Amino acid sequence: MKIIVLSGGIGTGLWPLSREEYPKQFLRILGEKSLLQLTVERFLNFCAPQDIFIVTQKDKKFLVQREVERYGLLEPQFICEPFMRGTAFAVLLGVARLKELFGGSDEIICVTPSDHYVERNEEFLLALEQMKNVPPNFYVLLGIPPRRPYPGYGYMKRGDSWGKGFFRVECFVEKPSPEEAERLLQEGSYFWNSGIFCFRLEDFERIGLPFFEDFVFPGDSASAILERYPSFPSLSFDRLVLEKSKNLLLFPCDPGWSDIGTFDALYELWESDNHSIRSLESRGNLVIETGKKLVVLIGIEETTVVDTEDVLLLVRRGKGYQVKTLLQDFEREDTKVVRSGLTSYRPWGYFKVLEEWERFKIKRLVVYPGMSLSLQLHHHRTEHWVVVRGAAKVTVGEKVSFLHEGESIFIPKSTQHRLENPGKVDLEVIEVQNGEYLGEDDIVRLEDVWERE
Amino acid sequence: MKIIVLSGGIGTGLWPLSREEYPKQFLRILGEKSLLQLTVERFLNFCAPQDIFIVTQKDKKFLVQREVERYGLLEPQFICEPFMRGTAFAVLLGVARLKELFGGSDEIICVTPSDHYVERNEEFLLALEQMKNVPPNFYVLLGIPPRRPYPGYGYMKRGDSWGKGFFRVECFVEKPSPEEAERLLQEGSYFWNSGIFCFRLEDFERIGLPFFEDFVFPGDSASAILERYPSFPSLSFDRLVLEKSKNLLLFPCDPGWSDIGTFDALYELWESDNHSIRSLESRGNLVIETGKKLVVLIGIEETTVVDTEDVLLLVRRGKGYQVKTLLQDFEREDTKVVRSGLTSYRPWGYFKVLEEWERFKIKRLVVYPGMSLSLQLHHHRTEHWVVVRGAAKVTVGEKVSFLHEGESIFIPKSTQHRLENPGKVDLEVIEVQNGEYLGEDDIVRLEDVWERE
Repeated sequence: MKIIVLSGGIGTGLWPLSREEYPKQFLRILGEKSLLQLTVERFLNFCAPQDIFIVTQKDKKFLVQREVERYGLLEPQFICEPFMRGTAFAVLLGVARLKELFGGSDEIICVTPSDHYVERNEEFLLALEQMKNVPPNFYVLLGIPPRRPYPGYGYMKRGDSWGKGFFRVECFVEKPSPEEAERLLQEGSYFWNSGIFCFRLEDFERIGLPFFEDFVFPGDSASAILERYPSFPSLSFDRLVLEKSKNLLLFPCDPGWSDIGTFDALYELWESDNHSIRSLESRGNLVIETGKKLVVLIGIEETTVVDTEDVLLLVRRGKGYQVKTLLQDFEREDTKVVRSGLTSYRPWGYFKVLEEWERFKIKRLVVYPGMSLSLQLHHHRTEHWVVVRGAAKVTVGEKVSFLHEGESIFIPKSTQHRLENPGKVDLEVIEVQNGEYLGEDDIVRLEDVWERE
Repeated sequence: MKIIVLSGGIGTGLWPLSREEYPKQFLRILGEKSLLQLTVERFLNFCAPQDIFIVTQKDKKFLVQREVERYGLLEPQFICEPFMRGTAFAVLLGVARLKELFGGSDEIICVTPSDHYVERNEEFLLALEQMKNVPPNFYVLLGIPPRRPYPGYGYMKRGDSWGKGFFRVECFVEKPSPEEAERLLQEGSYFWNSGIFCFRLEDFERIGLPFFEDFVFPGDSASAILERYPSFPSLSFDRLVLEKSKNLLLFPCDPGWSDIGTFDALYELWESDNHSIRSLESRGNLVIETGKKLVVLIGIEETTVVDTEDVLLLVRRGKGYQVKTLLQDFEREDTKVVRSGLTSYRPWGYFKVLEEWERFKIKRLVVYPGMSLSLQLHHHRTEHWVVVRGAAKVTVGEKVSFLHEGESIFIPKSTQHRLENPGKVDLEVIEVQNGEYLGEDDIVRLEDVWERE
């Protein structure tokens, strides 16, 4: 079995924890591992590292690679879209790539999101073992018995038994209203669509590709598909393929699955942690404070509180699905908070804006061992770098020097400079910018050195 | 008439906006002026600047002086307690001082808190004109017809008419329960105690001083009282004097007074400002965000949200009086958040901790024109100063130099140094500390220069 891990989404339901530049699958909200790491580890109980393929976007590849570095995945196992176009084309691209690698064999493919949670891995593996027996010319979908009437979820109705624990899928219901979701829960034959499904690689041409006829030609290679990306609309695989396909089977099983699609769903999984929270006459709250603040609640009930560097979100329990709604407004308005927080991630490390005023800006830069920022210059600002951890190799003009903890250097305007970490531990630098214009676009890159040396 | 402005309290009901080191009277919550400034201006409609006397503590004098600088008060008008002991002794000290200055005259004294709000100044002045006619041997208190059943307030019952708009005070009810407060409101003859009262200076010996017989001698001078301060308990003037005195009159009037004692009271005055707040299915909220965050509310009602640098407080409407309750717990536990936030105020200016890790700390210092920090040294940390605004005169070791915007200097460990602002605008400096111990107590002061040069 080969696994296609879809890691190209954002997970706006958990905004402001998730951002376009740092999506939900990278979050460490349930322990010390990210949801992407937990997903990969879940499948490593079942297959080898070389069987796992991750589809993401080009600009998120460095984040994905850093997350899965420890599992030894190789370059060909990262399949990059040029930009986001929904799961339909991510699956299409992934399958095309796997066909080039494994075409002619009767491989079973399992497609899985990378930002969901499964509580009981053993039950999940047993389900996978069953789903591996997907009959020719069918998709088999893992269907979860609903625990609550979540309005934001996709539901599918169980039809006649097909044998081997499989059932026909009678129909889909996407994102029902709160009232309808309640009805589906009562009805008893509706299941949540987990987004995890299996099929035979060789079958995709018959039970998948026909739905893509408006967008690609049957024989298109992965690189041909990549060239067509700009013309694709944004579509989910559910919408384009599954909801219209007649060849669907459902395998019902509940290994404690959650898509953690909303803060209401997260609340169910949350281990109450009263660290740095004081409350009086309060109960049923989910509090996520990403800094070092003391949180005090008085008379507050059934509320989710998410406090990040740049956004404070309060949501009443049961209204979690509205976060996505609001985000759509923000996206239309092109609000910056949708794209990123105060911390920005780069292949060489990350930086956080600590404070910003009219004529100066203070950043904390972290550069990973062996990494380097590009050689650059700014016309409108001077910079001071103070090394607070690790060792820095610094180029200013033609001069190269080494700085250690507590040492600093000044970079005049319009002077080329580069920051490198030649050491073995993270380099941390405080940068004080000063000038008449401090936009990120006052940067002349003289040479791109973003890769590991 | 001479005014005694009590400016020694904290106003814990508005914590975390108010702190021990930066009390409520300094807050700019209702416009651009602080509550203390609004109080002084309210009385300047009625009397001259030299008639106003402010009682505060020694360590808050510089904050008070800075607030009222513009009104031209002179040094003798600031009366300083060595430390906080409640309003009883603040009034005692203030009266003793005024007796030394104006004894023998038939001055009327008006005592007023500095952290309350009055909406209609003209009505307030008319009330003062009436209260000025306080008969000999009486206190006259401004009583406010209650608008709501606030449990945290002091109530007094109106008795028989005394003529001239005055009534006898029948009894006091301190901090009733929510149910009792509701009953007092319905009853109709109870008034809020505004804390504003008038009496004749010469009368204090008969109608005030006897209540202090356990603590001072009748003839004690202000300086004798100051010497006895360590032995005083913490007591309010209401508790020690007014509640027991038989010589009380009430002048009922509502000039739109509020003690802004809780966030529920503040909510009544709050001009809804939707700047940087987005909400969906939400109403009746009071949101105070002291940074630059976007606040998003979904399905949130009747809630106060206060977001400061180090504390996030959420309080359900009607529970505002519980903030004080919780603060008492914090005080017992000696929690730092009660004393100060991340910004600390000093006679020379203020500083804010921007970020703090194990081996480094970053501060933004603001030094007022003409002010200077003490000559000092640190044994466990180096410091980098980067000037981001204004001009700095810097002493490091024996060397004196001048730094301007964008320039920096390094201060090695155990080296004496001093920062001064010789200029005409605020000096702003980013300080990066680096070392094995970064506590505020690693400071050897070689010379104290906290006064204006």
